[in-house]
Amino acid sequence: MQYKISFKNDYSEGAHPYVLEVLSQTNQQQQAGYGHDQISQHARSLIRSAIQREESSVFFVAGGTQANLLVISHLLRSYQSVIAVDSAHIHVHETGAIESAGHKINLVRHVDGKLNVTAIQELLNSHQDNHMVMPKMVYVSHCTELGTIYRKSELRDISQFCRSNGLLLFLDGARLGCALTADGNDLSLSDIADYCDVFYIGATKNGGLLGEAIVFPDPDLSTGFDFHLKQKGALLAKGRLLGAQFYALLETGLFFDLARHANGMAARLSQAFRDCGYAFAFPPVSNQIFPILPFDLIERLQEKYDFYRWQSVDDNRAVVRLVCSWATTKESVDRFIDDLTHQTPHRNIDSI
Amino acid sequence: MQYKISFKNDYSEGAHPYVLEVLSQTNQQQQAGYGHDQISQHARSLIRSAIQREESSVFFVAGGTQANLLVISHLLRSYQSVIAVDSAHIHVHETGAIESAGHKINLVRHVDGKLNVTAIQELLNSHQDNHMVMPKMVYVSHCTELGTIYRKSELRDISQFCRSNGLLLFLDGARLGCALTADGNDLSLSDIADYCDVFYIGATKNGGLLGEAIVFPDPDLSTGFDFHLKQKGALLAKGRLLGAQFYALLETGLFFDLARHANGMAARLSQAFRDCGYAFAFPPVSNQIFPILPFDLIERLQEKYDFYRWQSVDDNRAVVRLVCSWATTKESVDRFIDDLTHQTPHRNIDSI
Amino acid sequence: MQYKISFKNDYSEGAHPYVLEVLSQTNQQQQAGYGHDQISQHARSLIRSAIQREESSVFFVAGGTQANLLVISHLLRSYQSVIAVDSAHIHVHETGAIESAGHKINLVRHVDGKLNVTAIQELLNSHQDNHMVMPKMVYVSHCTELGTIYRKSELRDISQFCRSNGLLLFLDGARLGCALTADGNDLSLSDIADYCDVFYIGATKNGGLLGEAIVFPDPDLSTGFDFHLKQKGALLAKGRLLGAQFYALLETGLFFDLARHANGMAARLSQAFRDCGYAFAFPPVSNQIFPILPFDLIERLQEKYDFYRWQSVDDNRAVVRLVCSWATTKESVDRFIDDLTHQTPHRNIDSI
Amino acid sequence: MQYKISFKNDYSEGAHPYVLEVLSQTNQQQQAGYGHDQISQHARSLIRSAIQREESSVFFVAGGTQANLLVISHLLRSYQSVIAVDSAHIHVHETGAIESAGHKINLVRHVDGKLNVTAIQELLNSHQDNHMVMPKMVYVSHCTELGTIYRKSELRDISQFCRSNGLLLFLDGARLGCALTADGNDLSLSDIADYCDVFYIGATKNGGLLGEAIVFPDPDLSTGFDFHLKQKGALLAKGRLLGAQFYALLETGLFFDLARHANGMAARLSQAFRDCGYAFAFPPVSNQIFPILPFDLIERLQEKYDFYRWQSVDDNRAVVRLVCSWATTKESVDRFIDDLTHQTPHRNIDSI
Repeated sequence: MQYKISFKNDYSEGAHPYVLEVLSQTNQQQQAGYGHDQISQHARSLIRSAIQREESSVFFVAGGTQANLLVISHLLRSYQSVIAVDSAHIHVHETGAIESAGHKINLVRHVDGKLNVTAIQELLNSHQDNHMVMPKMVYVSHCTELGTIYRKSELRDISQFCRSNGLLLFLDGARLGCALTADGNDLSLSDIADYCDVFYIGATKNGGLLGEAIVFPDPDLSTGFDFHLKQKGALLAKGRLLGAQFYALLETGLFFDLARHANGMAARLSQAFRDCGYAFAFPPVSNQIFPILPFDLIERLQEKYDFYRWQSVDDNRAVVRLVCSWATTKESVDRFIDDLTHQTPHRNIDSI
Repeated sequence: MQYKISFKNDYSEGAHPYVLEVLSQTNQQQQAGYGHDQISQHARSLIRSAIQREESSVFFVAGGTQANLLVISHLLRSYQSVIAVDSAHIHVHETGAIESAGHKINLVRHVDGKLNVTAIQELLNSHQDNHMVMPKMVYVSHCTELGTIYRKSELRDISQFCRSNGLLLFLDGARLGCALTADGNDLSLSDIADYCDVFYIGATKNGGLLGEAIVFPDPDLSTGFDFHLKQKGALLAKGRLLGAQFYALLETGLFFDLARHANGMAARLSQAFRDCGYAFAFPPVSNQIFPILPFDLIERLQEKYDFYRWQSVDDNRAVVRLVCSWATTKESVDRFIDDLTHQTPHRNIDSI
Repeated sequence: MQYKISFKNDYSEGAHPYVLEVLSQTNQQQQAGYGHDQISQHARSLIRSAIQREESSVFFVAGGTQANLLVISHLLRSYQSVIAVDSAHIHVHETGAIESAGHKINLVRHVDGKLNVTAIQELLNSHQDNHMVMPKMVYVSHCTELGTIYRKSELRDISQFCRSNGLLLFLDGARLGCALTADGNDLSLSDIADYCDVFYIGATKNGGLLGEAIVFPDPDLSTGFDFHLKQKGALLAKGRLLGAQFYALLETGLFFDLARHANGMAARLSQAFRDCGYAFAFPPVSNQIFPILPFDLIERLQEKYDFYRWQSVDDNRAVVRLVCSWATTKESVDRFIDDLTHQTPHRNIDSI
Repeated sequence: MQYKISFKNDYSEGAHPYVLEVLSQTNQQQQAGYGHDQISQHARSLIRSAIQREESSVFFVAGGTQANLLVISHLLRSYQSVIAVDSAHIHVHETGAIESAGHKINLVRHVDGKLNVTAIQELLNSHQDNHMVMPKMVYVSHCTELGTIYRKSELRDISQFCRSNGLLLFLDGARLGCALTADGNDLSLSDIADYCDVFYIGATKNGGLLGEAIVFPDPDLSTGFDFHLKQKGALLAKGRLLGAQFYALLETGLFFDLARHANGMAARLSQAFRDCGYAFAFPPVSNQIFPILPFDLIERLQEKYDFYRWQSVDDNRAVVRLVCSWATTKESVDRFIDDLTHQTPHRNIDSI
């Protein structure tokens, strides 16, 4: 059986080999359990240095949905809600995890996957008494679900608005590596720590086997979070597994190299789509791209490649999603481009 | 700095090398996410064969507390409770995870860490109307928290009582490997599947990096459990990480070999304590043993070895807990025995 | 201080005098607690007879939000959701009660406050895997939040669709009296019981001090609901208080007489608005009406009368909500009409 | 059919007639909903004056279980627990309401139904890391479940211990009226407000139809509680119903008169039991008494009177519970005493 090459997501392979190597090298050491091991302590130090906040709190958990539900339910009282765009992962693809933790998500319409101050202000205006939830947190993703990124000025505006209005700002960084290395990015990890009350750095989709590093720049906000982790089943006995991966990824900058590679592969695909004359549903800047293709082309490409058909735009065309990762090879990308070019009608080729 | 040899727990080291080897070998394969990968499918097949129930449902999760809260909250309605002994892990050491999921634990007194039918019946007798919770599940651990194991006749009696009284039987198998290879064990994995409505097989404490395999012998009881896993943040994007470990452990019987080794090391320690004339708080049969030692001996041993002081028994003596694992070496054990023997007063040595 | 006459809601007064009379008459009787009293049993019998289902289960609770959260959390598993229109009370005005009970509300767009089969089908189409919640219940209100009512054919279609698709149908009847006595209504209480899996009959807004009667036409769906009520703090020690009110309201048809009166008063107001040439945001058929009025008229009327300004429709006009109740007097209505007529510009008066 | 006279509980009758009278007198007034009405404001003022704290926050809810779950879940974070005696209502008779709200109850053994500082200290000692819940609140009842009361010195000691140890003190006052008017009571309402962080004053069991007044002496602790009430279904549309009752009970001291009556009737019964030579399981000081009676006497008395058999003490005798209320008549009590005396064997009578 011949497998298709997959552009479905960024978690189809295991970990970058160096991550496995560090796991092996440290494997036989006797270490304290539950995240008190020395490898995890080293990894936390690397993160604190990177954001230039030695006092910040860092916790490692297994995945993004877990990180989202833990952070949100830790910081909100039962009647407080989180504001997010209608394309947000917490709204669409977490099986009601946030609601299951007791909190309403207040939805506002996304613009290229992003949230803005005007939308937050309108939401606040319509929530004024105790017959409605009390909005208390703003959730953004960087990269967004649609592969776009926030400009520094955009995130700063949201941050300032939140601080003026008593709202907490939470940034979902499941794909933070790709965001911070994307074309046009002007945000640093340290900026993120300045603007947000809590955020996480995702390893699962950027070279790790699993793991998100939740960072509270102000450690006071994390009081009791260790109890919360344990109670919700998120504290691993062998916490070293998470610490060692972040150590491997952050020690030498591998984390950013892998993200840059994923973005580069996606950019190569984007250029090919552009060359063939295809438009995009959202600006292609990171490792997820959303070209608009004719139905028949989609069908032919899906014979050889795995990727998601996102949604139809008219009777002939649909948006598709293609995702590259640290493990995507130039060979796979070039084979795809070759097939794309050959499958594309003559008039498009002419436009090259 | 010189580290002490640790007998504190069975999760101080990483994974058995063969587990890491399988992870490396399968690392570059493109696989489906969220547990739909082929390695996890193979691992599920191995478990289904071992319990001789091809139709059973198997789910892999990261840890024991997570497994406990997921299973209990999946099977109980909000007003239903779970019956457990007062030494149960879900009561003592899970930071209220079960209560946080909404359920009361009805406690009965343990006998050597174990539950029995009489205690369950008494509990039922005292819960008769809607001003009290409705007991609906019985929770047992095998091994128990105190290192003891259930005899086949004991578990069968509990199982029959549960089925006669409309109760579900859930077996926490965080240390199931050690239980099934313990001296005096007469239960098989297949018996467990016959007697229980749901149980899990622990890898975290028996050679894996992390992972518990939750088994519903009757798949009807697992309807919707995949939604529940995702919602509670327990579904790993790279589910292959869990599947590959169970595959490595179960393919050739490594799982049982490692448990046998841990038990053997503990038995060697037990014999030494007996030889020195020390008694045990609970019968030592698996990888956790609870000798009763004089305060001063405990102090001297703790200079070189890490282990927990459990609780005082009188003004001079305390119960301690020593735990061996797949990674405990004969050298470490013999060094401990040597120190123990030399530290023990003459009259005890005479009794050898 | 001169109070304004209030058309703000249907709970500004206490109870209809006959309700208080029954409370007084039965006050000194020694009765069983927690709803086991004889008065509550009589009231349950009256409801069972009215819906011609002697076996149905009936529970009395204090209010609408409480009824909604109890019913929804009783019937849904943690990962299951309820489908509702975006104007639904459970979405807008219950402070996240449903989410606090752990459940996501799947929103679809309302048409005059109502839900339809096409919208439900589309919602189901987009929820197909375990990364999204599992829709399992449909919530409708009758009257809707916008004062409109379902036609028999509409509710039957929704009911049939639900039964074909494994969905439960729940009808919020906080204003059921007004719905069943509204102009154009062709549904009976017995039809409601035929079409719905669970519904409630509201007394709080129709002559009672407090109280909603939750009805499960099929008693099997109510198994354990008495435990659920007690656990959630909804079981009153003196349950007679609820039973006596329903007894008073249902014994002689007072319940429907009061609703008819409220509708009649609202219809009188509606006719006056029409006579003055004003349009309505939603068809005025029950005790809540939503005329569209010029800003300055609203301002002048609000000097003497209390009512809600709903939302602006353009730079000059807004929708307002006026509510009549069992206690609204013809004198109050006529005084309002008098003021309305005098405040209305000449060209509108001409159109009478 | 002849009804038995009931000493089963203190909620067998409706409300004191004056409560109904106030309800009737205020019934037709148009008032704001959801507790913003003027009658509720008056009632709140009466409570604030009684505790001499004009700034305190007062909320009215329907019942005791509701009050308990609302207060506890409002003040605790998810991983925090409440300490209570093993006879506590929240542990035994609320169908797991506290656990359903997510919190573990840490049990300590009661002494005559009461909690003490030594027991709290031991509990704290055994809860030292994040694998166990974090005790954060102490729950006491006054009267206790066993009819006993706290001395001022006892409550002061608990209060001081709580403040020194960062614990919140919550007093369940479902029967506070009877406690404050009991023989030997040296606590005032104002003392309660001094010693506790939150408490409630129960009307359901002392002359009202329903209602508990939750008091936060320090209003800062109640921030957001109004949202919490609404979200949990505890906010009545016609909040006046609760306010009017507390107004009626507190305006002229009726509340304390009724409690004094209930205690007096119980004291009359107690004296009769003593006269007949019977002992008590717990000191009889309030409206609930627990004499120890021979099985055959219990049986004969239960032919004419309703009361609970609490638990057996040996093969011949059991503890029973008799409860008097504001509505218990001297005639009923004397008839009971007459029967008791006649049913009691000669040697007991001699001992008078």
